[in-house]
Amino acid sequence: MHSHLFSSFQSFLHVSEILEPAPSFIIDQRRRFTSTPDIILQPHSVESVQKILRFCHENHITVTPQGGNTGLCGAAVARQGVLLNLSRLDKLREINLADNSMTVEAGMILQHAQEAAANAGRFFPLSLASEGSCQIGGNIACNAGGLNVLRYGSMRDLVLGLEIVLPNGELVSHLQPLHKNTTGYDLCHLFIGSEGTLGVITAATLKLFARPQTTATAWVGLSSIDEAVSLLTKIQSHFAERLSSFELISRFALDLSSQFSQLTKPTDADWHILMELTDSIPDTDLAEQLAEYLYTQGYENSVLAQSEQKRQELWILRENISASQRNLGTSIKHDIATPIANVADFVTECAAALKARFADIQIVCFGHLGDGSLHYNTFLPDIMGNEVYEYEDIINTIVYEHILKHQGTIAAEHGIGEIKNHWIPHVRDAAEIALMRAIKAQLDPHDIMNPGKLLP
Amino acid sequence: MHSHLFSSFQSFLHVSEILEPAPSFIIDQRRRFTSTPDIILQPHSVESVQKILRFCHENHITVTPQGGNTGLCGAAVARQGVLLNLSRLDKLREINLADNSMTVEAGMILQHAQEAAANAGRFFPLSLASEGSCQIGGNIACNAGGLNVLRYGSMRDLVLGLEIVLPNGELVSHLQPLHKNTTGYDLCHLFIGSEGTLGVITAATLKLFARPQTTATAWVGLSSIDEAVSLLTKIQSHFAERLSSFELISRFALDLSSQFSQLTKPTDADWHILMELTDSIPDTDLAEQLAEYLYTQGYENSVLAQSEQKRQELWILRENISASQRNLGTSIKHDIATPIANVADFVTECAAALKARFADIQIVCFGHLGDGSLHYNTFLPDIMGNEVYEYEDIINTIVYEHILKHQGTIAAEHGIGEIKNHWIPHVRDAAEIALMRAIKAQLDPHDIMNPGKLLP
Repeated sequence: MHSHLFSSFQSFLHVSEILEPAPSFIIDQRRRFTSTPDIILQPHSVESVQKILRFCHENHITVTPQGGNTGLCGAAVARQGVLLNLSRLDKLREINLADNSMTVEAGMILQHAQEAAANAGRFFPLSLASEGSCQIGGNIACNAGGLNVLRYGSMRDLVLGLEIVLPNGELVSHLQPLHKNTTGYDLCHLFIGSEGTLGVITAATLKLFARPQTTATAWVGLSSIDEAVSLLTKIQSHFAERLSSFELISRFALDLSSQFSQLTKPTDADWHILMELTDSIPDTDLAEQLAEYLYTQGYENSVLAQSEQKRQELWILRENISASQRNLGTSIKHDIATPIANVADFVTECAAALKARFADIQIVCFGHLGDGSLHYNTFLPDIMGNEVYEYEDIINTIVYEHILKHQGTIAAEHGIGEIKNHWIPHVRDAAEIALMRAIKAQLDPHDIMNPGKLLP
Repeated sequence: MHSHLFSSFQSFLHVSEILEPAPSFIIDQRRRFTSTPDIILQPHSVESVQKILRFCHENHITVTPQGGNTGLCGAAVARQGVLLNLSRLDKLREINLADNSMTVEAGMILQHAQEAAANAGRFFPLSLASEGSCQIGGNIACNAGGLNVLRYGSMRDLVLGLEIVLPNGELVSHLQPLHKNTTGYDLCHLFIGSEGTLGVITAATLKLFARPQTTATAWVGLSSIDEAVSLLTKIQSHFAERLSSFELISRFALDLSSQFSQLTKPTDADWHILMELTDSIPDTDLAEQLAEYLYTQGYENSVLAQSEQKRQELWILRENISASQRNLGTSIKHDIATPIANVADFVTECAAALKARFADIQIVCFGHLGDGSLHYNTFLPDIMGNEVYEYEDIINTIVYEHILKHQGTIAAEHGIGEIKNHWIPHVRDAAEIALMRAIKAQLDPHDIMNPGKLLP
């Protein structure tokens, strides 16, 4: 910790807002990056955030905002300057039942936000693997996705308004729960997905929904992704918005997860779908309708969750894929999406291209087929540790070339951070990048906010 | 028409892309403004739009994009230069059932977009009074709202991607139907609601939904807006997302509309609610459920639409309010919204303040209570014509002061145009306005795009 910085911040912060470096802040989720900040600050109030940014703006000190430190792309890794951890800004400010909204601070853990909504008889739908530790501010800064996007949208779709501290310390607040409002260029949507490069999100007004009161969960074994896409289209035509999740799992991914979870495989097939329907009206016969539909449509290789315990087991098989694959070593991960009709061709062609280059490459493929979004993790069996990152560029190049060929995106729901920003020129036009730089320069003329992230 | 401009454009456009001035292009919807462009262009292709913008950029000629010319705030009024009418870019480019999306050109009339979706067995939910003539590009440029926002969101929520011609003629295209995609600052959301000041939207990929297959429509008479808000909260708790419209109508608005429509009033009350529930699964007993719910909750002053004809009549009463009020003369219109819990206080307090200043002012108040959004039209009985606009500033000041007091917005779904841009500094911070100007300057350094609109 730099002593001159310590005394500067001590002059206007409470001593408990200045932290000793601890692994939970400086080692990233994937144990790939280590932050090397000059100081770690954990403000207790929005006013403290303003004071910190004003000081850093005036003194040209870089600031890296951090929420739950669960990011997978290095966006919350501080190379120098201030690591600004938002965890203490975790208050529920308001729940508004007439407007179906709640206002929470950026450091609130996602699961606590879900619980706050449930306690008020409502539902906050964002749901993802790290929900027990990731924070609302980080979810917004990365435009998080997860399991319920099919029905409720990404984080972008769930935000009604933001409170933001600009790089110079100014506060801009649009936290009214307005469902219609267009008064000039939209600032909130610029900040959603900006990964801490434009300022610090300190609070958000979020949309709430009716609580799902009936749930029907089924697992279907299929021989191809094409069959899965056909099932998706049929289920959506029949059950429409009641479909809230439609997850794809490859044979290999299920093998790993069932072994890890010590649960038997529900079906034996090359591809598997875990789908869930929900209805906000209680006591409907949704499960019976789903069972009958799958039966009459000939999906005999399928299992309906007949109890909450069975439902939990099906979801454990899905959620443990990430943990189970760690036995394969360190992976090169891809967080990608294509139009749904293109997923099957992408998977076939990309696997062939990767195997042509690395004969024994292992691919763990699973994800949110209902959104066209895949987790596509690749392992080189002879390389267990982080040395695999030497091959990252060559593997990424193969994967992303196929993604772009199929009109897809190289970043679906994990963000860009510092591992993908050199790919931005492949997916955004020069005019767009120039505009991004102009926006950044206007708000942050000294380039203090999270330098080296997001922008190429 | 300036002859030197005519010969310049004739050198690279087809002669049929250059139009004679006609009232449908130069008189605005409210017969308040008259465009005085040097030339009217109606390009047949995106390439022509690019050529026009490149020429205007190089020669510093202003360009005002125009769709169906149904705007209420003057955003499509050209004071000079080129009036760029997009009506001929009206093709359906693609319908994608797996992704529930369609790609249409900007000049497609909203109703045609609704029909294209219906022909593919899907539903495009944007619905508003001018849907027979307004165009998708204008809907996006103004972030249109309308009747189904409660369930499906505003136009902003319905856009998956845009194709844009930048002011210098460059094309930027993000028309892939990707449901998850975050690769840098979001450009599409900057253009949504930008009212032609940043470039020209030429096509959009839009979200499609399952078709409503069951509809239940009810009319309820109530004694206060507070009762209406209480009913809204109860109906949403019980029927959740099945509630697609929840419209408020004052006694005076219904009197005007029933007389104009030659239809009897369904209920006799100070305030009326027209609500509609929809379900995408056929043959449910939604109407019976709604009737029973209203009965058991004690809403006896209510009418359930027992036939499609009766349903149409209820909607005619709602939709004819705008036409029926024309007998009162020219109005000062307000397109406002507040948090739903504040609507009642706003209506009471604002009416008192207006009447204190203009004893015989008449207020036609109706709108989308489910979104907190009101049409709040004021008439001065002794002034029938456009001379009433002399009182616009003083009336706006009273209305907007009360709106801001109640955390509302001065522009919910009609846009800013040239009648509200001097109000922007009251609702956006100086730092935000500086950012808007920087964005505009980066994309449009010669300020050719729709000058005098939106920005203060």
